[in-house]
Amino acid sequence: MENKLGRELPSTLLEKLDFKPFTTTEIGHPIVQRTAPKVRLSTGDDKVTNDLKQIVKDNVKDGMTISFHHHFRNGDFVFNQVMKEIMAQGIKDLTLAPSSLTGAMNDVAIEAIKNGTVTNITTSGMRGSLGDEVSHGLLPNPVIFRSHGGRARAIENGDIKIDVAFLGVPNADRCGNANGMYGDEAFGSLGYALMDANYADKVVLLTDNLVDYPNTPASIKQTQVDYVVEVDQVGDPDKIGSGATRFTKDPKNLKIANLVSDVITNSSYFKEGFSFQTGSGGAALAVTRYLRTAMVNKNIHASFGLGGITKPMVDLLEEGLIGKLMDVQDFDKTAAQSMKDNLDQQEIDASWYADPDNKGAMVDQLDVSILSALEIDTDFNVNVLTGSDGVIRGAVGGHQDAATAKMTIICAPLVRGRIPSVVKSVGTAVTPGSSIDVLVTERGIAVNPNRPELKEELSNVPGLNIYTIDELADMAQAIVGQEAELNFTDRTVGLVEYRDGSIIDAIKEVKD
Amino acid sequence: MENKLGRELPSTLLEKLDFKPFTTTEIGHPIVQRTAPKVRLSTGDDKVTNDLKQIVKDNVKDGMTISFHHHFRNGDFVFNQVMKEIMAQGIKDLTLAPSSLTGAMNDVAIEAIKNGTVTNITTSGMRGSLGDEVSHGLLPNPVIFRSHGGRARAIENGDIKIDVAFLGVPNADRCGNANGMYGDEAFGSLGYALMDANYADKVVLLTDNLVDYPNTPASIKQTQVDYVVEVDQVGDPDKIGSGATRFTKDPKNLKIANLVSDVITNSSYFKEGFSFQTGSGGAALAVTRYLRTAMVNKNIHASFGLGGITKPMVDLLEEGLIGKLMDVQDFDKTAAQSMKDNLDQQEIDASWYADPDNKGAMVDQLDVSILSALEIDTDFNVNVLTGSDGVIRGAVGGHQDAATAKMTIICAPLVRGRIPSVVKSVGTAVTPGSSIDVLVTERGIAVNPNRPELKEELSNVPGLNIYTIDELADMAQAIVGQEAELNFTDRTVGLVEYRDGSIIDAIKEVKD
Repeated sequence: MENKLGRELPSTLLEKLDFKPFTTTEIGHPIVQRTAPKVRLSTGDDKVTNDLKQIVKDNVKDGMTISFHHHFRNGDFVFNQVMKEIMAQGIKDLTLAPSSLTGAMNDVAIEAIKNGTVTNITTSGMRGSLGDEVSHGLLPNPVIFRSHGGRARAIENGDIKIDVAFLGVPNADRCGNANGMYGDEAFGSLGYALMDANYADKVVLLTDNLVDYPNTPASIKQTQVDYVVEVDQVGDPDKIGSGATRFTKDPKNLKIANLVSDVITNSSYFKEGFSFQTGSGGAALAVTRYLRTAMVNKNIHASFGLGGITKPMVDLLEEGLIGKLMDVQDFDKTAAQSMKDNLDQQEIDASWYADPDNKGAMVDQLDVSILSALEIDTDFNVNVLTGSDGVIRGAVGGHQDAATAKMTIICAPLVRGRIPSVVKSVGTAVTPGSSIDVLVTERGIAVNPNRPELKEELSNVPGLNIYTIDELADMAQAIVGQEAELNFTDRTVGLVEYRDGSIIDAIKEVKD
Repeated sequence: MENKLGRELPSTLLEKLDFKPFTTTEIGHPIVQRTAPKVRLSTGDDKVTNDLKQIVKDNVKDGMTISFHHHFRNGDFVFNQVMKEIMAQGIKDLTLAPSSLTGAMNDVAIEAIKNGTVTNITTSGMRGSLGDEVSHGLLPNPVIFRSHGGRARAIENGDIKIDVAFLGVPNADRCGNANGMYGDEAFGSLGYALMDANYADKVVLLTDNLVDYPNTPASIKQTQVDYVVEVDQVGDPDKIGSGATRFTKDPKNLKIANLVSDVITNSSYFKEGFSFQTGSGGAALAVTRYLRTAMVNKNIHASFGLGGITKPMVDLLEEGLIGKLMDVQDFDKTAAQSMKDNLDQQEIDASWYADPDNKGAMVDQLDVSILSALEIDTDFNVNVLTGSDGVIRGAVGGHQDAATAKMTIICAPLVRGRIPSVVKSVGTAVTPGSSIDVLVTERGIAVNPNRPELKEELSNVPGLNIYTIDELADMAQAIVGQEAELNFTDRTVGLVEYRDGSIIDAIKEVKD
């Protein structure tokens, strides 16, 4: 079976799992029935314990779906503590439904799969040893990859039914009021975890910082929380907000960022009250700084900045160049700190951020989004999930979601070492080409043929060398030569949902 | 049929409406399934209109349940605008499910009942002409009276299924982000309306103040809102926060307030970190001022103040004598203004405030609550709903909910003119006597016999004259003489739910 992008899908598997193939980025106006949790009534007393063992024993059973958030990023201590306890109790056949999996979780996740504790996973992404093992067939069932908005949708409509959510927080009171802003391991917005808190049947907070009741602001509320488990430490402060958000010094990335800024500022979207999202990739992050200069020079202010919030965006907020930061997660310490200092930095949950199945998400109001790519093909389809070797090493993140912006710009170097970024056909299609408007590389840009008026706008801008995307792909190939064919088995190790829940691509097991 | 309080209930009616009689104030730990709305998907564009007529036409159908909030109190312009449009379109057989009905709504509500537009009502209360008419049989079906916490429960479990919520707000952006804090008709917390916004299938905001997108803080979120209707005016600023919250100058009320303060400060609950709620009644409001002196003198700080927030509570917050104000509604302009100025004044929804069917509400953590009464009987049952003439002239409000406090104090004058407050048997039992701990009148106090240790604590306090409640009832009767027997027909015009949904009493049609 092929979907509308021409991606080959395993039809028997789709039928078995009740998935439909991707057809369109248009969501339309259907009426959907939301789901809701079961709630065990309580007065709120007796929630506090330090006995994680007993909590697991009382609440986690074979076959359940459990969840975590990834706001602690590479500094996460929560996933490992909980999963080790679950493994010690011999619980089997769990579905793991975290907002994403970070490198800090890899070893334990691999162990849990190997011993049958975890047999299903849905996540935004995975990297390193876990991505490698799963790509080579470790997990008995295919991973379901979902965007942040897609996960919110799936939780809200019951596709993901979380039995127990284990949510680490840098502070909580005895009844479970908690936020991400205060405490040694503060990470700012709890955006992804708010979905779990709202929809899981059981919500277990883990914290090393029990504060006075009532704890406010309460991003997670006592009405949602069953237990508050005191642990020694929920995370490593030094590793929260590190990783993907380093500011680039690479000349190629800086050139790309400059060109992206030129595309934006020369487009009709660059006007008073415009809005934008940047990702956390090397070039994407630098764009914000270049954009600032143009905003100051032309006296243009943004109505809002969206997404994973970064220091450069906070700088613009504090300078008055952005009206509001709509914050589903914070990529660095400055951004996390700013959420409590700046009232105009509003915490939003993943549904408000990006769920296509509601009455309007923030991404639906975006003018410009600047996103990265591992690969982009000549149909503008983007891969942010698998490497050139076919191995899972990324995350859907908010990519599909933010690509709904009026102008979505992909920034990527034409080649990375011997690996081309612009190709004839991506290894894995994550974001459909129809939602991508411009590709910016250091060698030149390409405008999606479905946006002729945008190409016209950009055609006379000095320094913007416009090519067709086929020309850019040819240029890349000329540099790196013909790529070797990859070897896959027939087995599907991952299914990639589009944000509406349809299947946009399948990931095959890598044969070495 | 009699319930556990010995109140006579119409068994056929209860059976028909699937209600159980009240048995206990203990909620226990059952597991309940929450409900969830149907959502019509949208990108969030095209929500703004000034065509209320079309919105009503497209969304309100015969037999539906529609809702409003009462945060504009006596200054509300929203209910009348919407109901007049609904009547003009000849829509019939609606269930009206507002958080409460204020005097500003009476004329239009009566008209809507008379012409068959409204045939069912559930509300916290009603007063004036509407209460009078309903008491005399105007509405074809009995009104279901629910506490604020009970309404939250009923909305969350589907007992109240709101088809369309019409929610007036003093500000909103084009996608529906709104709060109660800014604008000419600001009223502070949107606490009650947050339930409707979260659970109604359709949410229609009405505002006269369309602000820039994105509007933050967003108490109501764009993900919840279907339409933003621009109207000329949503309320009369001068009448918001007036009414019940006048500060008493009546010597009798001041004496009662002083005695209440003595009860509190001489009880074991008056210690560092205690918490309290006061109502908006004359004496209840004055208590806070007396309490302040004791708190300063003894260097005692409250962890939180709860409820309808009033200026005296804000004063304590700003003075550092209260840690947090947990705010489901604001009774006066100072309190409303304070919500945006004081980060420690946290907006809470009605579920967090008082819903018994969740994982712990604020009221469950209350040490002391100070509540008023129209009548209290010798079993300590309290009536806040019907007058001595049997006519509906009050509201359940948060009375049943806050009575879950560790020490609940009812303050009431022994008699009001020729009307006794302490009686053998209340006209309507709203709050069960088992949850009431102390009655304070200007003539003396009574401690519930189920609290002997509390009586002991208070027994040696100078100036606190402790009587049995029978003695106080006798004293009242000695003043006013034997009351005339009331005349009722057999017809039930109202059913009063306890906060758990069981029926605590029935209200009969008054025969003049």
